[in-house]
Amino acid sequence: MLQGNAVYAQSGGVTSVINGSAYGVITEAMKAEFIEKIYGGFQGINGILDESLIDLQEESPNMIEALRYTPGAALGSCRRKLPDLEKNRDEFERIVQVLAAHNIRYFFYNGGNDSMDTAYKVSQIAGQMGYDLISIGIPKTIDNDLPVTDNSPGFGSTAKYNAISLLEGGIDVASMYRDSTKVFVMETMGRHAGWIAASTAMARRMAGDPPHIILLPERPVILDKFLAKIEKTVAQNGYCVVAVSEGAKKEDGLFLADSGNTDQFGHVQLGGAVTVVQSLIKENLGMKTHGALLDYCQRSGRHVASRVDLEQAIACGQHALVLAKEQLNGKMVTIVRESSDPYQWSVDHTDASNIANQEKLLPDSYISADGFDITEEFITYCQPLIEGEDFPPYSAGIPQYGQLKKQLIPKKLPAFSP
Amino acid sequence: MLQGNAVYAQSGGVTSVINGSAYGVITEAMKAEFIEKIYGGFQGINGILDESLIDLQEESPNMIEALRYTPGAALGSCRRKLPDLEKNRDEFERIVQVLAAHNIRYFFYNGGNDSMDTAYKVSQIAGQMGYDLISIGIPKTIDNDLPVTDNSPGFGSTAKYNAISLLEGGIDVASMYRDSTKVFVMETMGRHAGWIAASTAMARRMAGDPPHIILLPERPVILDKFLAKIEKTVAQNGYCVVAVSEGAKKEDGLFLADSGNTDQFGHVQLGGAVTVVQSLIKENLGMKTHGALLDYCQRSGRHVASRVDLEQAIACGQHALVLAKEQLNGKMVTIVRESSDPYQWSVDHTDASNIANQEKLLPDSYISADGFDITEEFITYCQPLIEGEDFPPYSAGIPQYGQLKKQLIPKKLPAFSP
Repeated sequence: MLQGNAVYAQSGGVTSVINGSAYGVITEAMKAEFIEKIYGGFQGINGILDESLIDLQEESPNMIEALRYTPGAALGSCRRKLPDLEKNRDEFERIVQVLAAHNIRYFFYNGGNDSMDTAYKVSQIAGQMGYDLISIGIPKTIDNDLPVTDNSPGFGSTAKYNAISLLEGGIDVASMYRDSTKVFVMETMGRHAGWIAASTAMARRMAGDPPHIILLPERPVILDKFLAKIEKTVAQNGYCVVAVSEGAKKEDGLFLADSGNTDQFGHVQLGGAVTVVQSLIKENLGMKTHGALLDYCQRSGRHVASRVDLEQAIACGQHALVLAKEQLNGKMVTIVRESSDPYQWSVDHTDASNIANQEKLLPDSYISADGFDITEEFITYCQPLIEGEDFPPYSAGIPQYGQLKKQLIPKKLPAFSP
Repeated sequence: MLQGNAVYAQSGGVTSVINGSAYGVITEAMKAEFIEKIYGGFQGINGILDESLIDLQEESPNMIEALRYTPGAALGSCRRKLPDLEKNRDEFERIVQVLAAHNIRYFFYNGGNDSMDTAYKVSQIAGQMGYDLISIGIPKTIDNDLPVTDNSPGFGSTAKYNAISLLEGGIDVASMYRDSTKVFVMETMGRHAGWIAASTAMARRMAGDPPHIILLPERPVILDKFLAKIEKTVAQNGYCVVAVSEGAKKEDGLFLADSGNTDQFGHVQLGGAVTVVQSLIKENLGMKTHGALLDYCQRSGRHVASRVDLEQAIACGQHALVLAKEQLNGKMVTIVRESSDPYQWSVDHTDASNIANQEKLLPDSYISADGFDITEEFITYCQPLIEGEDFPPYSAGIPQYGQLKKQLIPKKLPAFSP
């Protein structure tokens, strides 16, 4: 069995529970007899390229425990995408050189599609360079768009956060519509896949409850049908609640959010789908609207994380060490659904190359015929993923999140510039 | 002592804990020997004008209990402002006629500045019409801009919600700034007063923690100083977090939010201060920004309500019945701060006319010299108001909020059109 050190790094947009996976990897790595030391990559793959390696042995047991309830990326994350392997091997070789310099034999990479591509390529390059390395991916994305795995850690908590936000915003409008706002629009993340926007449907208790309309990236918004549905809903209920994905598109296939709003200087303006939807309603129906854009709060809203999601994030981290012990290289941990009701799941693995650069969209069977809603089949899928609470400890009225010391180990190599 | 029925109504923008006051009024009214029945005004003062009175005796004890943890206005609220008394007495007289038709001798009105004006005028008109009535106001506003009372129920929970949101959004940016977003901007409510924007400072644990800049309505945004502070903060920390009040103004005194953005059709666009601040940063500094606009979610975010705020909301409702028993007319319940540390408070009352149509802005001593931050004095003031948690019950992953049956009693008067 391969004996040496290990490194764990976080990549891409953060989630409320990615540090749950960090907790799983780190605690199991510290127990594993085949691993001497476990390091962290500071700011994702940047930390490997820079040789900025965090000595996780220097962190207190309390802080390791706090990873369970701390959002964001405790080690720092990155948006850096490695260059094409054929055109530029330098960065990949540098990664292997840094790993070799510190006798790192296990590389655990926690991220989404791009990151699984990186994990897979690192395993290949190491092999070509004759360096024995086990490279293992751990899934993470609020977008829930990874193939093979039933769901991705991070999604359940974002779904819960958005469902609760829409529930509460909906109660607000329902209280006030008579002589105030008629339409409340809430934007969710999800640039290409509608999983998050769809999850706002979990806010419903009874037929007719908000959201009344969900605009998904998977279906272009047919404007006249959309406006007609708002009018009908307002006529029936007095108000209407719309959930719109940041990736919702117009009939011409362009993003709603790219509708070319300009500011007072004539510059194209930042802003989201929510603003465009509000404008469309205001201009065509003359109704008062309000809009919410929860942005990063929805992917770091650990204070209402899903307990199931947290448990899965931890289990995925822990299972990476099981795969390591079995000397399985170039794999990603997956979550397997055994049954929805009662909810039963387990962890397994797949080739990281099966995940790399693929996106799992909402299947047709999860989208209603008119394209403005989801189906019961989606509810059955999503319900278990938002179940259970795991509140962080509070102090002085706000959550008591942890912060790693992030003490770096001495560098051994010259600096690298790609 | 005046003997008869009572009515309770909710007015203006809702809060996470206004139904706590409803709980306090209703449970005490049901116990009071001088009150026979307690009714609710459906949709605020509209329900009195329309004679749409909810029979609260018909609600189950479980639902009355659920008022403690249900956000929004359980009876429905309104934005309706009564006309000027001198020009149009009709609506005020109608109110008294409806009260008289149902032998209502106690009028409890739960709202902000405008509502206290209504409560005061109703008490005056009843007197002039020779109808014995006790009219009592109960404070409520997330804006915390009511004079006399130390704070207003609803503010503490909004402060806590916004502080937690900024804390979590800040952790997100801190994780990602190296090759992603440099500046995160979060907009808060508060059109005229900066209490809510200021409260985001409660997110800080240590010096240097977010928010790094707070834009308050009380201080115009000096653009070059603002941009310089962002540059300095990014140079020091790698990222910067800005809280901006929806009421933040430019040097010319106009709202940032009224900066005249136009959509693709040339129409002035809806949208908030957050979008304008993002544009200013992007255009002048070329930095990547992200923006959050929590909108209604911040005033209905009961899932993270402040326990102190809830206790005060309930106590204000209960104290209205103490004032009623003392036959005090035209008063509003107030919260009195006896000490900040340890926090001690009590309830008292003032003339509703002292509150009517006045706004309490952030005092100068709560605002830092450069105008971009708050002082320790504000922290001392705000800290106790966000303390403690009171999580609602959860079921299937989301809060299990209640919903009143809202069964109306038979009308006795002809319809009224103002």
